[in-house]
Amino acid sequence: MRVLTPQPLTAENFAPFGQVIELATAYHYPINEGLTTRYHDLVKADTHEQNGRTIVSVFRTNPIPLPHKIIKMERHPLGSQAFLPTHKHPFLVLVAPAGEQVYAQDLQLFITNGQQGINLAKNTWHHFQLVLGEQSDFIVIDRGGAGNNLQEVEVMGDAIIPVNVAV
Amino acid sequence: MRVLTPQPLTAENFAPFGQVIELATAYHYPINEGLTTRYHDLVKADTHEQNGRTIVSVFRTNPIPLPHKIIKMERHPLGSQAFLPTHKHPFLVLVAPAGEQVYAQDLQLFITNGQQGINLAKNTWHHFQLVLGEQSDFIVIDRGGAGNNLQEVEVMGDAIIPVNVAV
Repeated sequence: MRVLTPQPLTAENFAPFGQVIELATAYHYPINEGLTTRYHDLVKADTHEQNGRTIVSVFRTNPIPLPHKIIKMERHPLGSQAFLPTHKHPFLVLVAPAGEQVYAQDLQLFITNGQQGINLAKNTWHHFQLVLGEQSDFIVIDRGGAGNNLQEVEVMGDAIIPVNVAV
Repeated sequence: MRVLTPQPLTAENFAPFGQVIELATAYHYPINEGLTTRYHDLVKADTHEQNGRTIVSVFRTNPIPLPHKIIKMERHPLGSQAFLPTHKHPFLVLVAPAGEQVYAQDLQLFITNGQQGINLAKNTWHHFQLVLGEQSDFIVIDRGGAGNNLQEVEVMGDAIIPVNVAV
């Protein structure tokens, strides 16, 4: 049984899986007579496949009960999916390398610093949301349109997120 | 001098100017084995004019110094612009009816209930952001692409937002 421990999320270590969205390093400029800073065009939405379009939803998510055994992973073959938290609580991101199978030993668990969002690249294997602490809202930017945009796979081997994952 | 007083924002009274975005009345369904509620496709993004695309930015905006005299209004002829607050503070929305001129007596001031976002329809005359209380972040969904997407006009007549606007 592999016990997963998270690494702090950075643009560099997450690059194989998608974007890290954080204002600290984003292109920005003043507008509105200086009252506003615009952090411009933060999400590389990749949603045009098969006449898709970029849509905006809110996910209101309860914390994941821990310990949590990893049973399956999913990917979206037709579009990227971004999660922008409307709160400052760190959350977990569990992903796996490209391929037709997902193996427990290849899983990569990240934890945000409370100021970060993510944009999962099209086709990135990922677990559904892994929220810690309390119910949290996320603005989600993904793809709308026809076509099957969900694939799921059972994970080969055993892995678990322990109760003390964020300690 | 017209002293503006806000009316509570509702989907009905804001309909001539755009959408009110609020989870209470949004289409939603459970996902992620019941841990998440998805409030689906909340923003009618109208951004395709002249090969535009839907982009996602963050506006970090300081409160408007009050009293505030209304000098000019703006509109975006090529696309809608949505503001989704990442906080629970009511904010002001100042709009005016369609037309080539904006008159002080036609201005309409709204205040959100702390749970609402807005999506300004393409070509709606509006004031730049009017935040109350403290610096606040908004996720903004608008149009990226070539073309002039900003028109400004000086307001005909005098109007002011008073210090006690939110009382």
